[in-house]
Amino acid sequence: MSESERSGGRAVLETLLAWGVRRVFTCPGSTEASFLDATVDHPDFEVVLTPHESVAVSAADGYARGTGELAVAYLHTHVGLANSLAHLNAARLARSPVVVLTGLKPARLQSHRGFTCVPDTGRLAEPYVKHQWQSLRADDLPEDLNRALRLALTEPTGPVWVGLSQDLMNAACETPVPDPERYRPRARTAPDPRQVRQAAELLATARRPLLVAGAEVARHGAVAELVALSERLGAPVVNEDRRTFERPGFPSSHPNYAGLYDAKRPTVADRDVILFAGCRCFTEFEVPGRPDVPDGSRVIHLHSDAGEIGAIYGVDVGIVADERLALARLRSELDGQRGPAGDDRVAAMRAEFLADSGPLPPERDGVENVAAVAEALARLVADDTTVVGDATTTGAILLRRLPQDPPHQHHTTSSGSLGWGMGAALGLKLARPEREVIAVLGDGAFQFSPQALWVAARYRIPVTYVVINNESYAAVAAALRRYGGTAVKRGVYPGKDLSGIDVAAIARGYGVFAQRLHRADALPAAMAKARAHPGPALIEIMTDPDYLGP
Amino acid sequence: MSESERSGGRAVLETLLAWGVRRVFTCPGSTEASFLDATVDHPDFEVVLTPHESVAVSAADGYARGTGELAVAYLHTHVGLANSLAHLNAARLARSPVVVLTGLKPARLQSHRGFTCVPDTGRLAEPYVKHQWQSLRADDLPEDLNRALRLALTEPTGPVWVGLSQDLMNAACETPVPDPERYRPRARTAPDPRQVRQAAELLATARRPLLVAGAEVARHGAVAELVALSERLGAPVVNEDRRTFERPGFPSSHPNYAGLYDAKRPTVADRDVILFAGCRCFTEFEVPGRPDVPDGSRVIHLHSDAGEIGAIYGVDVGIVADERLALARLRSELDGQRGPAGDDRVAAMRAEFLADSGPLPPERDGVENVAAVAEALARLVADDTTVVGDATTTGAILLRRLPQDPPHQHHTTSSGSLGWGMGAALGLKLARPEREVIAVLGDGAFQFSPQALWVAARYRIPVTYVVINNESYAAVAAALRRYGGTAVKRGVYPGKDLSGIDVAAIARGYGVFAQRLHRADALPAAMAKARAHPGPALIEIMTDPDYLGP
Repeated sequence: MSESERSGGRAVLETLLAWGVRRVFTCPGSTEASFLDATVDHPDFEVVLTPHESVAVSAADGYARGTGELAVAYLHTHVGLANSLAHLNAARLARSPVVVLTGLKPARLQSHRGFTCVPDTGRLAEPYVKHQWQSLRADDLPEDLNRALRLALTEPTGPVWVGLSQDLMNAACETPVPDPERYRPRARTAPDPRQVRQAAELLATARRPLLVAGAEVARHGAVAELVALSERLGAPVVNEDRRTFERPGFPSSHPNYAGLYDAKRPTVADRDVILFAGCRCFTEFEVPGRPDVPDGSRVIHLHSDAGEIGAIYGVDVGIVADERLALARLRSELDGQRGPAGDDRVAAMRAEFLADSGPLPPERDGVENVAAVAEALARLVADDTTVVGDATTTGAILLRRLPQDPPHQHHTTSSGSLGWGMGAALGLKLARPEREVIAVLGDGAFQFSPQALWVAARYRIPVTYVVINNESYAAVAAALRRYGGTAVKRGVYPGKDLSGIDVAAIARGYGVFAQRLHRADALPAAMAKARAHPGPALIEIMTDPDYLGP
Repeated sequence: MSESERSGGRAVLETLLAWGVRRVFTCPGSTEASFLDATVDHPDFEVVLTPHESVAVSAADGYARGTGELAVAYLHTHVGLANSLAHLNAARLARSPVVVLTGLKPARLQSHRGFTCVPDTGRLAEPYVKHQWQSLRADDLPEDLNRALRLALTEPTGPVWVGLSQDLMNAACETPVPDPERYRPRARTAPDPRQVRQAAELLATARRPLLVAGAEVARHGAVAELVALSERLGAPVVNEDRRTFERPGFPSSHPNYAGLYDAKRPTVADRDVILFAGCRCFTEFEVPGRPDVPDGSRVIHLHSDAGEIGAIYGVDVGIVADERLALARLRSELDGQRGPAGDDRVAAMRAEFLADSGPLPPERDGVENVAAVAEALARLVADDTTVVGDATTTGAILLRRLPQDPPHQHHTTSSGSLGWGMGAALGLKLARPEREVIAVLGDGAFQFSPQALWVAARYRIPVTYVVINNESYAAVAAALRRYGGTAVKRGVYPGKDLSGIDVAAIARGYGVFAQRLHRADALPAAMAKARAHPGPALIEIMTDPDYLGP
C-alpha cells in the first residue's frame, strides 16, 4: 500500500463515522494497528481503552441501552472475543445493537494455525449474535461493516460480529463508504387489525385485566402509550418478573404501578386477562410445573419480535408489532368499545405490593442487612439517577425497593453474566452524561470485572459503584440449601466463602475514590462524599455473610 | 431421589476419586449443588474456589503441567465456560489433560431457553478441546466422565469438555464407576525403524547438526535422552523459538545448550541437519516469507502427535513416536554408525547466544529498564524455582535471560491468553509444593486475572508474583510502530496508555503481601522479604513506559 492510498483500517473507521459512531470500546492487540492508526487523524473519535474485553462489551451494551443507537467494541483475536462472550450474552438479551469487531491475524497465518488463530473464530460468537461474518476482501470492508451496522439496528436489534483480518486492514481499500441513509432501518411494523380487535375485546370485557410491562416497551419508546392504556382501562401494571427483567416499562411512581409480575401473588392470581407488552415470556430459573400464568386467565402477548410469541407457552392472542404503534392502536380500538368500569382494586394491589417487603433477612447484631442497604439506597435514588443492578443475592430485594422510572432509572440484566454492571454503568454514563449513574453490585459480581474501575478513573467517568460485600457466593450456599443434602445438614457450604477481600482498597489501586462502610445509615453521608468527589467513586458496604437470600 | 440413593453428583465425584483426582478448581453457581454437596463427605477432596473462571482453568492447566496428571475445572453454565475459554486455549497448546466440567440447567430449561441457557453449550468449547459431550442420562454419568478422563490422558493429551445437566446430577444414578485401571492410557508408541535409520544417517553424516528441544520433550520425560543424544553427537541444542515456547526441553546449564531457535541467528543459519524433537513447527506471528528453517538444511521432525509432522511445511524425515522412546532408539542406531567428529563450534554458539543480550532497552534516568529487571530476576532463580512467564513486551528478554532447567524451571504459554500466568502459578505450586514458584507478569497481562490473588491468599498458596509495570500496552504501541503510519509520525499511540494502576495496592486488597519497587537493585531485598513472608506475595516493579520492546 502506498502512502496516498486508503487502508482497510481507515475505510472501517470512515464507515463507522458515516453511521455516527463516535467512540469505540476496545482492548486491542497487534492486529488492530491499522484502525488505531487511522483514529489519530480523528480527534473527534474516541478510543476507550479497557484492560479486559468483558468491560469493552458491557460498556458498549450500556452505551447502546443509553443512546438507543449503535455501539461498537473492537477486540483482539479469538482470545479477546472469548473473554467478552459472557457479557455479549447480556447485550443479546437486552437486544442492544452492539457490533463486535475482532481483529484477526492475516489469512495466511489463519491457515497456518499461527499465533492466536483458531479456525472459524466467528463461530465462537454464534450463540450471542444475530450474524457473524469474516471479511474476505479489503475492498469489501466498507460494505461488510455497513451491512453489520444495519443488521444490528434492524428489528429485532442485537449484537453482530465482524472479523477483520490484519492483511485486509493493512491493504489498500478503494471502495467508497455506502451512504448509511439508504440503509438505516426506520420502518416500524404496525399490528394486524384483527389481533388488535381480539385483544381489545378481551380487555374490554375483562373483569380484572392486568398489564405487564416488558423491556421492549422502554426500548421502543412506548412507555407513555402503556401509561395511557393503563389509565384508559383502569388496570394495574406490573413490570416483568425478576428473572426476565432488563429495564422497567412502567414508572413505579404511577398510581397504577403494582410491582413485579409473579403469578403466585394473590393479586395477580385472580386476573382474568393479562396483556404482556414487550415481555419475554418467560425466563425460567427452575423447571416449571406449568407456565407462570394464573389458571384460567387469557393471555395477550404483544411483542415486536415474532419469535417471542408462543416461544414456550401458547397464547390466546398474539400481536406482532412495534410496541408503541400497537399500544396506540389498541387504545383507539378500546375507545370505540365499552371499557371496564375501572378496577377498584388497583390501589389495593399497589398497596399490597408496597407493603409486602418480601422475605426479610434476619436482624443480627454487628452485621448490616441487605434490606436496610436497599432501603437506604432507595432514598438516594433521584429522578435523574440511573441505577445499574448486578447483585445476585440482593438483586430481588433491590428490584422490589428501588424506583423504576423508564426508560433509564433502572437497568439490569437477565443474562447471568456476572460483572456486567461494572462496564454497563460506564456506557450508560457516557450515553447519558446528564444522569447520575449508580451501579449496585454484589462482591461476587464485582470480581468478574474489577478492571472497569480503571476505565472509570482514566476517562474520568463519574459513576458511583456501590458494592454490597457479604464476603460470600451466597447464591451457591442458597443452592445447597435448596438441594437439601449433606451440606445443609452439617452447615458446611463448599464454594460459598469469599472472605478477606477489601474492595475499597482494590478500587483505590485502580485510582478510584473509595469508602468502606459497615452500616446502611452511613450511606447518605458516603454518597454525599462520592457525589462531591470529581470522577468515579466506590462505596463498599459490608453485610451479613450468613444471609443466603430469600 | 430418596435419601439412600446415590445422586448423579455423587457418582461424578466417585468417578473423579477413582481416577485419583483430589481437587477441583471451580467457580460454581446453583447448577453445581449436587456435586458440591457430595464433596462434604470427602474432606480429602479439595474444592478450590476461584472468583473467575479464567483462574479455575489456568490453575488446572498449571496443575496438570506440574503433575503430568489429570486436572479438573468445574464451571457454571455457558457464561462460566465462556469466561474460561481464552485460558483453555493455553491448556490446549500445552496439551494439558484438563477436563472441564460445566453445570447446565435441567434439560427442560435448556429447551425452554431458560436462565443461563444457550443451545449446544459444548460447541463453545470446540476450538479448545479434543472432544465435547453433554451427558444425556443420569445412569451414563460415570461412564461419560470416565471416557472424558481417559480421553484427556490419551495421546495427544489435551482438554476435554463434559456438560452436566442439573436434572441428571440431582437424579439417582445406579451405575457403578468403571475401573480406571482398565481405561488409563499407558501405551507409548515406538518409532518406525525405517524413519529412525534415515534420521540417524542424516545426523551421522551431518557436518553441523542442530537439535531443537520442544515442549513435548519435557512432557514425555525425554530430557535425559535428548541430553545423551546431544552428547553422543557433540551437537548444540536450542529450545523452541519464543512464539512456540511452552516449557524448556533442554537444560540451559548444559554446555551444549545454545539458546533459542531462530533461523536468522548466524550460528543456526549454517546448520545442515536439524532435528526438531517434540516441537511445534512453527507458531508464526507474522506472515512468513518462508519456513523458519535455514536454506538447504535437512529437517527431521520427531513428534508424538502425527498431526504435527508436515502440518505447515514439509520435512525430510518424519518420526511419529513418544519422544523418549524415539530419542533412545535414535541414539542406539547412531551407536552402530560413524558419528560426526563432534562440533567444535558448540561452545562458540553457546557463547554467541549468551553474549548477545538481544536488542537492549535504552538507559533512561529515573526509570528502570526491563533488561535490568530480567538480570536481577535471573540471579534470584534457584534450581528449585519454577518461573511462570506471562509478560508480552518483556517475554522475549525474560526467556533469553532466565535459566531453563526442564521439566519445571520455566513455564510459559504460546497461546496469547493474557493473564494465564496468574492461575497457572497457583496450579504449579499446588502440584509441586517443594518448588518455589515465581510468576512474572506484565501489568497488561496481570489485568486479565487479578482475581487469582484472592485464591493465593485464601488457600495460602505461597506463590510470588512479580509484576513488571510499564503502565502500558507497549505491544499495541509496538504494533503501531511496525505499522509505520500516522501514529508513529506524531508519536501518538491510541490504546497504549495503562497508567495510574497501583498493582501492589490491588494485591493488598486481595489480602496478598505486596511491595512496589522503582529499581531493579531493590529486587533481591524485596524477594527476601517475600520469601520470608508466609503465604503469597507480590512485587510490583515500575519500568520505562516508553520502551516498546525489541
